[in-house]
Amino acid sequence: MRFSVGCEIGYDLQSQSTLIFNISAMQGGRQRILSERLTISPDLVADEKTAADSGNRFVRLTSDPGEVRLRYEAEVELAPLHNEPESVDEVPVAKLPLETLTFLNPSRYCPSDQLARFASRQFGNIAPGFGRVTEICNWINSEVDYLAGSSDTTTTAADTFAMRAGVCRDFAHLGITFCRALGIPARLVSCYAWQLEPQDFHAVFEAWLGDRWYLFDPTRMAALDGMVRIGCGRDAADTAFATIYGSVISQPIRVWSEALDGDTSAQWTTDAVSVTRS
Amino acid sequence: MRFSVGCEIGYDLQSQSTLIFNISAMQGGRQRILSERLTISPDLVADEKTAADSGNRFVRLTSDPGEVRLRYEAEVELAPLHNEPESVDEVPVAKLPLETLTFLNPSRYCPSDQLARFASRQFGNIAPGFGRVTEICNWINSEVDYLAGSSDTTTTAADTFAMRAGVCRDFAHLGITFCRALGIPARLVSCYAWQLEPQDFHAVFEAWLGDRWYLFDPTRMAALDGMVRIGCGRDAADTAFATIYGSVISQPIRVWSEALDGDTSAQWTTDAVSVTRS
Amino acid sequence: MRFSVGCEIGYDLQSQSTLIFNISAMQGGRQRILSERLTISPDLVADEKTAADSGNRFVRLTSDPGEVRLRYEAEVELAPLHNEPESVDEVPVAKLPLETLTFLNPSRYCPSDQLARFASRQFGNIAPGFGRVTEICNWINSEVDYLAGSSDTTTTAADTFAMRAGVCRDFAHLGITFCRALGIPARLVSCYAWQLEPQDFHAVFEAWLGDRWYLFDPTRMAALDGMVRIGCGRDAADTAFATIYGSVISQPIRVWSEALDGDTSAQWTTDAVSVTRS
Amino acid sequence: MRFSVGCEIGYDLQSQSTLIFNISAMQGGRQRILSERLTISPDLVADEKTAADSGNRFVRLTSDPGEVRLRYEAEVELAPLHNEPESVDEVPVAKLPLETLTFLNPSRYCPSDQLARFASRQFGNIAPGFGRVTEICNWINSEVDYLAGSSDTTTTAADTFAMRAGVCRDFAHLGITFCRALGIPARLVSCYAWQLEPQDFHAVFEAWLGDRWYLFDPTRMAALDGMVRIGCGRDAADTAFATIYGSVISQPIRVWSEALDGDTSAQWTTDAVSVTRS
Repeated sequence: MRFSVGCEIGYDLQSQSTLIFNISAMQGGRQRILSERLTISPDLVADEKTAADSGNRFVRLTSDPGEVRLRYEAEVELAPLHNEPESVDEVPVAKLPLETLTFLNPSRYCPSDQLARFASRQFGNIAPGFGRVTEICNWINSEVDYLAGSSDTTTTAADTFAMRAGVCRDFAHLGITFCRALGIPARLVSCYAWQLEPQDFHAVFEAWLGDRWYLFDPTRMAALDGMVRIGCGRDAADTAFATIYGSVISQPIRVWSEALDGDTSAQWTTDAVSVTRS
Repeated sequence: MRFSVGCEIGYDLQSQSTLIFNISAMQGGRQRILSERLTISPDLVADEKTAADSGNRFVRLTSDPGEVRLRYEAEVELAPLHNEPESVDEVPVAKLPLETLTFLNPSRYCPSDQLARFASRQFGNIAPGFGRVTEICNWINSEVDYLAGSSDTTTTAADTFAMRAGVCRDFAHLGITFCRALGIPARLVSCYAWQLEPQDFHAVFEAWLGDRWYLFDPTRMAALDGMVRIGCGRDAADTAFATIYGSVISQPIRVWSEALDGDTSAQWTTDAVSVTRS
Repeated sequence: MRFSVGCEIGYDLQSQSTLIFNISAMQGGRQRILSERLTISPDLVADEKTAADSGNRFVRLTSDPGEVRLRYEAEVELAPLHNEPESVDEVPVAKLPLETLTFLNPSRYCPSDQLARFASRQFGNIAPGFGRVTEICNWINSEVDYLAGSSDTTTTAADTFAMRAGVCRDFAHLGITFCRALGIPARLVSCYAWQLEPQDFHAVFEAWLGDRWYLFDPTRMAALDGMVRIGCGRDAADTAFATIYGSVISQPIRVWSEALDGDTSAQWTTDAVSVTRS
Repeated sequence: MRFSVGCEIGYDLQSQSTLIFNISAMQGGRQRILSERLTISPDLVADEKTAADSGNRFVRLTSDPGEVRLRYEAEVELAPLHNEPESVDEVPVAKLPLETLTFLNPSRYCPSDQLARFASRQFGNIAPGFGRVTEICNWINSEVDYLAGSSDTTTTAADTFAMRAGVCRDFAHLGITFCRALGIPARLVSCYAWQLEPQDFHAVFEAWLGDRWYLFDPTRMAALDGMVRIGCGRDAADTAFATIYGSVISQPIRVWSEALDGDTSAQWTTDAVSVTRS
């Protein structure tokens, strides 16, 4: 399926500031950029780079005080791999690829060490595999209220676990935390999300199962088949759409994601879905 | 200078367990392994790999219940780069290499977002450069008590900041946290540390200044010239000497580091010291 | 001096709710109520009681859904005791009255156990007495930014200590915490505060020195001589102006405090000031 | 039933220190002290007082460096009130006695504000009354592991909720926290506990139901009929058996509680049990 995605972001800089953006769709695997355009006004020199390990695409620019606006738009084709959930296994730590081990470690927002005992009690006796991660998502969806404004940038998964309320990134952080506590590598993914209401940058997570990263969205607010990946990392600390060094006032942002193939009647899949490699 | 370093580690496994070790000296830059030997008893098949990004060397093994012991010993040559502290500058975020940006993000034990205001108040007006990181280390050394047993594996730099007590990893976490809050990439380094009393795995940190990573030890308990680097990462979550999946009882560990060149009379340097590249 | 103080508070109750208010000026010691009036609309039956230990005056009412509004107004005479700061001593724990010991214990927002080492390092060598508590207030006023919106109802003094920003209740909580850590009983006081800009309920603290409770305001935003005490307790958990059991929407509140004697030219005192007993 | 209870406590004082003990059995209600003896060696002058509000009995003494030892022994008669659980109701906040309202507030170890949403989700739909508090205890007993050494003096109920492990005081703190979140006044009680293995000071909680305080022990490690109450307060911050101002080294403590009536075959009751008044 093809999607038209994009965003408009603006800042009023109060001082000379350096801004680092991670808003461009990733390139590769089963996600293909058909066309894209990034417009910066004023016409500043921007430094564009792709991180070797994550594939995150960064735009860095420095500006004197004044208004800076970015508009990113892209046409992206997604051809997600679909597998039978029952066919997708967990991988014992002894067999995990070295580069996935990092995603077992606790991170700023995913203190998997703190929730290990609960994870083991609640999910430890469920049969390993894709279905166990689905159970984790079921639990989060059932036990945590989606409540705008209930968390902030300091909120960890342990906080969300106690508070029982959060937004998409908190839901994802909790999923990641439980997975890591069970020995399943997991990482945050920011994305443009088709059918998400209201439209905004979305946060979901990926767990390493079988031989690849599979997508999970504990909020169940968007279709897995329509997630155009932007950034991935240990948690939201790695995938901010904008990181700002300087004093700025944020303008309202606008984010969009539309299906171009008219297939809006599709049922949301319950398959195991992965887009990170062929 | 040449050093003889090593350790002996043992566990009584209560269940089949997978253990991942990060105890081998790193190879490369100004640290050269002249010889090394890893002995595992019983003679288990171990999976040895080096992480592409960090250079950390992992040994992974799985064993049935029973005793597992490792002995690592190496002869390592260090030829640290020495620079005049005054000649080593900070790098504006606008110019930082992409791969160092990750080390500006808050992490499990280094919530730089939480201590940003203090960092700015306390260190924001100090002239940027190597000297500012030295001031950070001075502050930590002066304001935090080194106190064995005062922290545990859940202790963050924000906890240490409030508690004003910790051990080497807490000192390093606090230094990393302040650096990141000021826009200086910083990361944890575990090492064999010559002259450290009592001998143990040591934790220090590296900050990116000029065109490389420089070593800092806020504990001032070991000589920068004698640190044989083992692991580096965002914080102690990435550099555990042993990560265990299973139920085990730890045996006492033994760690050593000795100078082979007889130059034990050397004064501890106050130069800017780096060993990560030529 | 005489003051005219009061407030208007309103709620839209979404369900049957019980509301407990603590907005009436305290009676006794060097604070005398000359006249007062509490108006509740609609004309609900309210349960008015004064707590034996604290002297806090509570109004409790239960209402069906709909709007509830309270208006409290009072004319209050304050005749604060003034003493020379140098003449006011700390009391050793061995000599403290039994009823003050409770105010040495850590509480919800004043975890004095967590900041004990810092308190001892920073204030432990200052000569005991009123001047030491003044030094605590100086430190808070200098090292913490007064910043509306920087804290919420979960913020503890340990959080404020790390964040270095807060509002009046956070300043008071930090002062209480340091005092308790040093063995000085301290408690929160909510009040109508003359000259506070903008007008609102104010939070300050009292420390037990000599033979009574002395007032301290680390924000330095209002005159000690013009504080009409409303509630006192261990921390803000005990002195909420409104505690609500039910679902309500808050209306804007209005608070006022005016001097009736025209003596608005008075310098703010630096004396040791107490109003709790004759 | 009659019980012989007591303890031996000792400290090596490194400096002149003031020590406040709360080890004497309470007097009153359905707990009657038949005889008691407190021995202090050396023979120091001690200040003995009973708090008016809580009934806690404090012994305060100051000593120069050296060893201080206390031995307390008492013969105590308990005549607990037994009621049918079904007959004991919750009291709406609108009807609660003023002096119980304090025990609805969050405290140092019982941050009921933080766990309010969970409490409401988990226990909000259970029929109010004694049975609901029993359900809270059932949940704690089932979902939290009793694990010596898993917590320390900074551990709050929110920590225990996340960690899912604790000791008796953590169990009690969690019960108190859930009760308060539901509008049920609750407080900590320290006691000598018959049949507790191994013998130690025990921590349970009381909830205000009907017209009195009822005892609950989420650990289920001791019989409600055999709890000789020592101290009560908001949480463990108010009921420490020893509070020390000075530098001391603790000696091992010894605590005992024995039934004198030979009725050790009694089944543990599931009645609603209260001892605080006649």
